Amino acid sequence: MDKSSIIDQLAEAFRCLPGVGPKTAQRMVLHLLERDRDGGKRLADRLNKAMDQVGHCQSCRNLSEQDLCDICSNSARDDSLLCIVETPADLLAIEQSASYRGYYFVLMGNLSPIDGIGPAELGIERLLTRCQQGVKEVIIALGSTVEGEATSHYISEVAKPLGIELSRIAHGIPLGGELEFVDGGTLSHALQGRKRI
Amino acid sequence: MDKSSIIDQLAEAFRCLPGVGPKTAQRMVLHLLERDRDGGKRLADRLNKAMDQVGHCQSCRNLSEQDLCDICSNSARDDSLLCIVETPADLLAIEQSASYRGYYFVLMGNLSPIDGIGPAELGIERLLTRCQQGVKEVIIALGSTVEGEATSHYISEVAKPLGIELSRIAHGIPLGGELEFVDGGTLSHALQGRKRI
Repeated sequence: MDKSSIIDQLAEAFRCLPGVGPKTAQRMVLHLLERDRDGGKRLADRLNKAMDQVGHCQSCRNLSEQDLCDICSNSARDDSLLCIVETPADLLAIEQSASYRGYYFVLMGNLSPIDGIGPAELGIERLLTRCQQGVKEVIIALGSTVEGEATSHYISEVAKPLGIELSRIAHGIPLGGELEFVDGGTLSHALQGRKRI
Repeated sequence: MDKSSIIDQLAEAFRCLPGVGPKTAQRMVLHLLERDRDGGKRLADRLNKAMDQVGHCQSCRNLSEQDLCDICSNSARDDSLLCIVETPADLLAIEQSASYRGYYFVLMGNLSPIDGIGPAELGIERLLTRCQQGVKEVIIALGSTVEGEATSHYISEVAKPLGIELSRIAHGIPLGGELEFVDGGTLSHALQGRKRI
């Protein structure tokens, strides 16, 4: 099989997926060709459909096939809460925890001037407009990386003048975590954020 | 996002790939939608093309888009050798070792009466015809599982009357392997198969 064969071209195309190297790509191609051609055709159809039809929600910027995503168009949620997350995956993780019933705003990234990602790319203007639509508390749920911290800081600065309550999700030791294996920064946050019992 | 959305349907379709569970499928979908829509479209095109156009080589049964695969149509190889392997992946592994220059025959499975895989499904008849086309030595390169052993035994039985030399690839300790960690069966094969130096 030379490198220009259909089989090799397919293996190369699979490598655009995260975590797929040459060996895994080859295994995927051979699996589909030998055992699951229907699955391969279905995957191709759905890929085409999704790449063409999925855009962003007009309100929260999450990935959505409609103008308003299912969460934003669900009027049964708590409209006094707005949770700011970095990515659709973060939103899904919070949804799966079933511990939040408010709305979201998805930045689709963090501030990163070096990569040309500024407030405009994160839709900060739309976020501020959204905050003024009956929101009482804005919960910043960004990661604890340098970029996440910088973005959190920036958002809290620009949102302060609106007079809305601002909060950040807690830092501390994860459930089931052993103190021995938790890093110093996390421990220091966990101590500072201690609660009376 | 309810379970009938395009995004969830795509995630479900990704699960037909080997080693892809719900979390990995979700990561793949979000990666393509957020960062690599072109890659997603290209993957869909190539999937469609491969699922439709890739068939089997008329001579060796390997996956191929032409009637004769690149190896079978390459007249520069050694036509006195025929190597029998189980899958296209096995063939690729031998090709990548660059230690064999003969032709192949791909069984696309092992004998497994319980799954309805008999000699007809493995193309044994075509194999015997192929053996009579100038082949001097048939190398059986099947795995050392119970099914592989049974298939090797069956092939050696039906190929014996043709009067062609038959061989099996060697069992022994892998390169870089430590004797301490090699299982007893392998060690016993390695001792039996010892060579004078």
